[in-house]
Amino acid sequence: MSLANGRPYLAIPGPSVTPERVLRAMHRSSPNIYEGDLVEMTHGIVPDLKAIAGTEHNATIYIGNGHGAWEAALSNVVAPGDKVLVPATGRFGYGWAEMAEGIGAEVEVIDFGVQDGMDMARVAEVLAADTRHKIKAVLGVHVDTSSSIRTDMRGLRKALDTAGHPALLMADCIASLGCDRFEMDAWGVDVMVAASQKGLMVPPGLGFVFFNDKAADVRRAMPRVSRYWDWTHRANPDFFYQFFCGTAPTHHLFGLRTALDMIHEEGLEAVYARHATLAEAIWAAVEAWGQGGPIRLNVAERGKRSHAVTSLRIGAPHGTALRRWTEHEAGVTLGIGLGMSTEDDPKGDGFFRFGHMGHVNAHMVLGMLASVQAGMTAIGVPFGPGGIDAAAEVIAQG
Amino acid sequence: MSLANGRPYLAIPGPSVTPERVLRAMHRSSPNIYEGDLVEMTHGIVPDLKAIAGTEHNATIYIGNGHGAWEAALSNVVAPGDKVLVPATGRFGYGWAEMAEGIGAEVEVIDFGVQDGMDMARVAEVLAADTRHKIKAVLGVHVDTSSSIRTDMRGLRKALDTAGHPALLMADCIASLGCDRFEMDAWGVDVMVAASQKGLMVPPGLGFVFFNDKAADVRRAMPRVSRYWDWTHRANPDFFYQFFCGTAPTHHLFGLRTALDMIHEEGLEAVYARHATLAEAIWAAVEAWGQGGPIRLNVAERGKRSHAVTSLRIGAPHGTALRRWTEHEAGVTLGIGLGMSTEDDPKGDGFFRFGHMGHVNAHMVLGMLASVQAGMTAIGVPFGPGGIDAAAEVIAQG
Amino acid sequence: MSLANGRPYLAIPGPSVTPERVLRAMHRSSPNIYEGDLVEMTHGIVPDLKAIAGTEHNATIYIGNGHGAWEAALSNVVAPGDKVLVPATGRFGYGWAEMAEGIGAEVEVIDFGVQDGMDMARVAEVLAADTRHKIKAVLGVHVDTSSSIRTDMRGLRKALDTAGHPALLMADCIASLGCDRFEMDAWGVDVMVAASQKGLMVPPGLGFVFFNDKAADVRRAMPRVSRYWDWTHRANPDFFYQFFCGTAPTHHLFGLRTALDMIHEEGLEAVYARHATLAEAIWAAVEAWGQGGPIRLNVAERGKRSHAVTSLRIGAPHGTALRRWTEHEAGVTLGIGLGMSTEDDPKGDGFFRFGHMGHVNAHMVLGMLASVQAGMTAIGVPFGPGGIDAAAEVIAQG
Amino acid sequence: MSLANGRPYLAIPGPSVTPERVLRAMHRSSPNIYEGDLVEMTHGIVPDLKAIAGTEHNATIYIGNGHGAWEAALSNVVAPGDKVLVPATGRFGYGWAEMAEGIGAEVEVIDFGVQDGMDMARVAEVLAADTRHKIKAVLGVHVDTSSSIRTDMRGLRKALDTAGHPALLMADCIASLGCDRFEMDAWGVDVMVAASQKGLMVPPGLGFVFFNDKAADVRRAMPRVSRYWDWTHRANPDFFYQFFCGTAPTHHLFGLRTALDMIHEEGLEAVYARHATLAEAIWAAVEAWGQGGPIRLNVAERGKRSHAVTSLRIGAPHGTALRRWTEHEAGVTLGIGLGMSTEDDPKGDGFFRFGHMGHVNAHMVLGMLASVQAGMTAIGVPFGPGGIDAAAEVIAQG
Repeated sequence: MSLANGRPYLAIPGPSVTPERVLRAMHRSSPNIYEGDLVEMTHGIVPDLKAIAGTEHNATIYIGNGHGAWEAALSNVVAPGDKVLVPATGRFGYGWAEMAEGIGAEVEVIDFGVQDGMDMARVAEVLAADTRHKIKAVLGVHVDTSSSIRTDMRGLRKALDTAGHPALLMADCIASLGCDRFEMDAWGVDVMVAASQKGLMVPPGLGFVFFNDKAADVRRAMPRVSRYWDWTHRANPDFFYQFFCGTAPTHHLFGLRTALDMIHEEGLEAVYARHATLAEAIWAAVEAWGQGGPIRLNVAERGKRSHAVTSLRIGAPHGTALRRWTEHEAGVTLGIGLGMSTEDDPKGDGFFRFGHMGHVNAHMVLGMLASVQAGMTAIGVPFGPGGIDAAAEVIAQG
Repeated sequence: MSLANGRPYLAIPGPSVTPERVLRAMHRSSPNIYEGDLVEMTHGIVPDLKAIAGTEHNATIYIGNGHGAWEAALSNVVAPGDKVLVPATGRFGYGWAEMAEGIGAEVEVIDFGVQDGMDMARVAEVLAADTRHKIKAVLGVHVDTSSSIRTDMRGLRKALDTAGHPALLMADCIASLGCDRFEMDAWGVDVMVAASQKGLMVPPGLGFVFFNDKAADVRRAMPRVSRYWDWTHRANPDFFYQFFCGTAPTHHLFGLRTALDMIHEEGLEAVYARHATLAEAIWAAVEAWGQGGPIRLNVAERGKRSHAVTSLRIGAPHGTALRRWTEHEAGVTLGIGLGMSTEDDPKGDGFFRFGHMGHVNAHMVLGMLASVQAGMTAIGVPFGPGGIDAAAEVIAQG
Repeated sequence: MSLANGRPYLAIPGPSVTPERVLRAMHRSSPNIYEGDLVEMTHGIVPDLKAIAGTEHNATIYIGNGHGAWEAALSNVVAPGDKVLVPATGRFGYGWAEMAEGIGAEVEVIDFGVQDGMDMARVAEVLAADTRHKIKAVLGVHVDTSSSIRTDMRGLRKALDTAGHPALLMADCIASLGCDRFEMDAWGVDVMVAASQKGLMVPPGLGFVFFNDKAADVRRAMPRVSRYWDWTHRANPDFFYQFFCGTAPTHHLFGLRTALDMIHEEGLEAVYARHATLAEAIWAAVEAWGQGGPIRLNVAERGKRSHAVTSLRIGAPHGTALRRWTEHEAGVTLGIGLGMSTEDDPKGDGFFRFGHMGHVNAHMVLGMLASVQAGMTAIGVPFGPGGIDAAAEVIAQG
Repeated sequence: MSLANGRPYLAIPGPSVTPERVLRAMHRSSPNIYEGDLVEMTHGIVPDLKAIAGTEHNATIYIGNGHGAWEAALSNVVAPGDKVLVPATGRFGYGWAEMAEGIGAEVEVIDFGVQDGMDMARVAEVLAADTRHKIKAVLGVHVDTSSSIRTDMRGLRKALDTAGHPALLMADCIASLGCDRFEMDAWGVDVMVAASQKGLMVPPGLGFVFFNDKAADVRRAMPRVSRYWDWTHRANPDFFYQFFCGTAPTHHLFGLRTALDMIHEEGLEAVYARHATLAEAIWAAVEAWGQGGPIRLNVAERGKRSHAVTSLRIGAPHGTALRRWTEHEAGVTLGIGLGMSTEDDPKGDGFFRFGHMGHVNAHMVLGMLASVQAGMTAIGVPFGPGGIDAAAEVIAQG
């Protein structure tokens, strides 16, 4: 007998739970892609995306996943031979760096490990040392989905300013947009990439690239940008077909329209507050459990923890065993540990992650935590008392 | 800010959570109702319904809700002036009695209150006193959705047998079919009614009436049965149109086919065991909470508690306040107290119910319990410690 | 190879084509049935139903099919032993008569065959002969789905008035509501029944009963009405649960809300005009074909033809052969002949029907007609020239 | 009053009509993207795609539209400075050429106009003149969606062989795959690109690139290929994440799986035959109309006409007027003329297109043709008699 046969909860850090309103909006006959409702709807989506990104500048939508958005953003401002600096706080910092290498960039990575986050002084130092300003762009991952470290993007901006360095500041908000506060213009970010399947609550398939005028200038000076990645006409199309460099992602647009409506109805500040409180509930539970057992939050410093994803350490093989148990016995699928393997744990079986991004409420998070506690009991991992009570207390305070 | 903006969980005692497979199966163009797939599918549904009811006899499907099924069943065996006995354990016993009055029956109710369940000796006594066998049918509600009392239907059968009374035994399994074990033939039940929207996981709209040969004989002796309620051709149609006395409930049938497949895939015994364990988890939490506060299970005796619905007492106005809080702050909609009003609490604000029937898993139940605990904290109702831990412990044991 | 593998078109006279907006509205988690959106929505549905029925009086919604609505309506005003008069124009007149017999009424049928429609003088004559006013109700089918005869309900009203007969006039608008103009109050109809799956474009599962004050008075004088069928509380519920005598048909209500919105957006007059023009296109095609072959409209007199369904004669076995061909080779499912069997054609293989009710446009009808013409060619049935051209001409004139 | 208010038919050349089975398959909660059903399903999709493409070599799936697939294919075998030859038969030949320019290729276009198709002798001539084999790839559009010209890809292969030229032969089958016969290996095509939203019946969002060993060798010799476009790991992933260079297109994969099942159930040969017959029906109608009016098939030579899309000439402003009429009055949306503007008709108002690709049957096509005839009548464009009859005759012959 299994206790999982009900509505399953996918608590991995993306794709997130797609709201039924979004799925419903996507369940429709294909529309005309040359004129009519789809065209008008797309024109309305763009300003709403900008509002969520905190920018008054440019928003573009690509049919592609997050990796596609990474390559799109890079392709517009980094030419073969250009140099980029990547202060990395997890697997996805390295991933973006690899995409930069893939387009021929010279890449310098500063490895900040997977638990501590960036040391901005060191970033500033490296930038200051680049006196000939060979570094064309600094690539910062706002929330690294593997480590769940959240980087202070204002701090990174300040590091550039301190060093007096003219490089573009590029941010990856794939795991954070619509979850953790992000204000592109106010924080001095020049280019930002995101995707549909996390805080924006739409199935995978869309990438977004936002850019300001400084980045647009850099683009104009590029020797060549491939047509699919070129953001120029996507941001300012002469006709609808250019929005997407060809056929529009019809059904995803209907879903996105609905998701943006939902965010608007709740209010972006309320969305941020909800994510913050749910994250605190998770932290409270894990910290209590950790008093009497091996489970630990990956990130010790509260201010560096994401509100959308939480990476955990529990020791091999408990991470994998726990994930199996909650999926097959309780109906909760947890995220695998990513980029966390060590010599002792080559497969990363001692790690796992909670996704808590987008369409997530107190019931879902509390149920997940209680399922994890049941799982620890079932697989024989000790834990300290009061975890769920502490989480429920956070929820009760709201 | 609300923490409810995620996937809402409707934890009322029906309609239950419709599985997305079922909803998907219902999202389709209308089929031909005279020939083709729908006809074949319906012929396959009937034996599967019988298997879940534990009968080798007759199954009929009505377009109607549970009240419709009540009236359908009665209409086939109870004529105006006939007498029925209703040993009532809650609001729904009275409801069925009222339907019997509505068709002109003389109704005798034995009121067993809303907490204690039936005293079979007393039922036997009443039957024995009916020496002229004027009572044509005994109407027993297997699980009364209002009180959450589960009645021992074998015990009720035994009461008839003890009294040597020939009345039909009719069971209402609306809230229990596919949740709490029920074996129509083995337990000597002659007529049973159920509906689609609880353990069978399909939206409201279908009622079911099962009957054995003894009941069929009673039907044949009836002076007249209205055509819509007449079960004769529904159980043995000469042509498809008679299955439903007219147009078939096309989309509900597609949903029902899928729901029956899901029950079959899990296995009926596993379904029962899942419901039993989830119910125990709920009881464990509430009993712990009750050590330090006003919350109580409505039914003290474990063996008389439903595995599908749990009625609770917390004192006015806490029941209503708690329901409001969990719905608006945590995303869980609890059931209202029904049939529980008292002089001190005319609106029943001191009561509420958990539905845990059908498509429900450990995550959903644990999340609901933790949300309730958060709610008690938020609205200032004291409770004893260890409730969620106790529930998680039950889940861990499986 | 088949040419049917595309989007199939079900052109039977009900269930009609469910709009994808309606299906989408129905694809959702179950709502609370005690409070919230569903309750408000239902209160809004009732006046919209009345508007379509052309009445300012009472509307009730039953979980049930058309047969259920028939029995519901009868049960409120016809007691066992009461007499009803049924001037029948097809199978469904007989069907309603049988339902009346089923509840114990004395039924007098005037059989007007299946092609000619009612002779109102004869109806008036029969009524006038009932000098003691034993006839309590006259049951008229507005559009008989089998014969596709449309009855002049004002004419029927006049027949009662001419005879000075106080019987209730009850109308079956199951196949006509939302297709053929019907004005309950203006036309002096006292009770009207309809269902969800034809002009109202929702899957089967809901029946509707409308009634005026005169009928309400008759109801009040009834010795007893069974609770499920009783319209009293359904029309004026003290609380939401009474609207449906138990659990609400949640998903159908969401679908119905959307269907009513669609009718409102188009405008009821425009809906009637669309049905009228599409029907004329069909008639034009068949009349042209009939100049050179056996196909005939069942109803010769234009004013007696339904705008929602068309019954055809083509001679056995061509009707069945044609239906098979269009379904398997062209993707169009036509309706079977119903109630049209003769001695020479015991199975009715020489008849078939077109449904053109509800969500139907010029493309669908023209494609159906051209598919039928292809089918006649394929199975070797001769036909006169210019059928499709004539239909297209009607469409072009709009 | 409009006659369009029914199920609308989008008869543009892509996106095509998405089958409701496909939409239903896509309406689901997001799955785990690291393990489980999605992983297994994707492994099963790849061989099925190869079978439809007629290749035993490599298939890759990109999140992207057709333009993305164009760029993906080019990026793997064409480096900046390489030369490609594009014998163009319509707008999409030019479109692919522009994508090649966008990645830095030197592009030579042979313009064959928009009506006549390729002169293979001339292609062979150009290739033969390239004695130093600077041309690295020949880009041929199998069916140009703008002109509806179908190119004989075996003929193009033969042109390369005749010239003894080693260039890669690359085919664009975006508008033809699953509609017009295509056999990649047998016909000697080295690289082929396709997309999801036409013959494959899935919403826009997926592009496909197929390649053989010769192309793989060219890839290996490339100086660099960007990571998103690189087909190497997509074709032979070490782990699931590499299939899509990041997050999988979860919902599109569920849709694609169902669409491939549907093609398999019907049989690929039957799918081709269906498209061929439906195209012939269209041609028959237009040719008859053209005897008495200005409407003409764009492609005179039968063997050069696509079976999936038909481009038409009717003279400005009739094309646009006709499209408006059929959309607003009959419920059929026709495709705009694309790449057909002339000096006299700068907006292309004299042209339009029929899409008849994928999920399309006789009913849909016949209804479209009859709607077009009604439209010509309504807007006052003359036409010859017998068009629909001729189309129905083709359908009747099957």
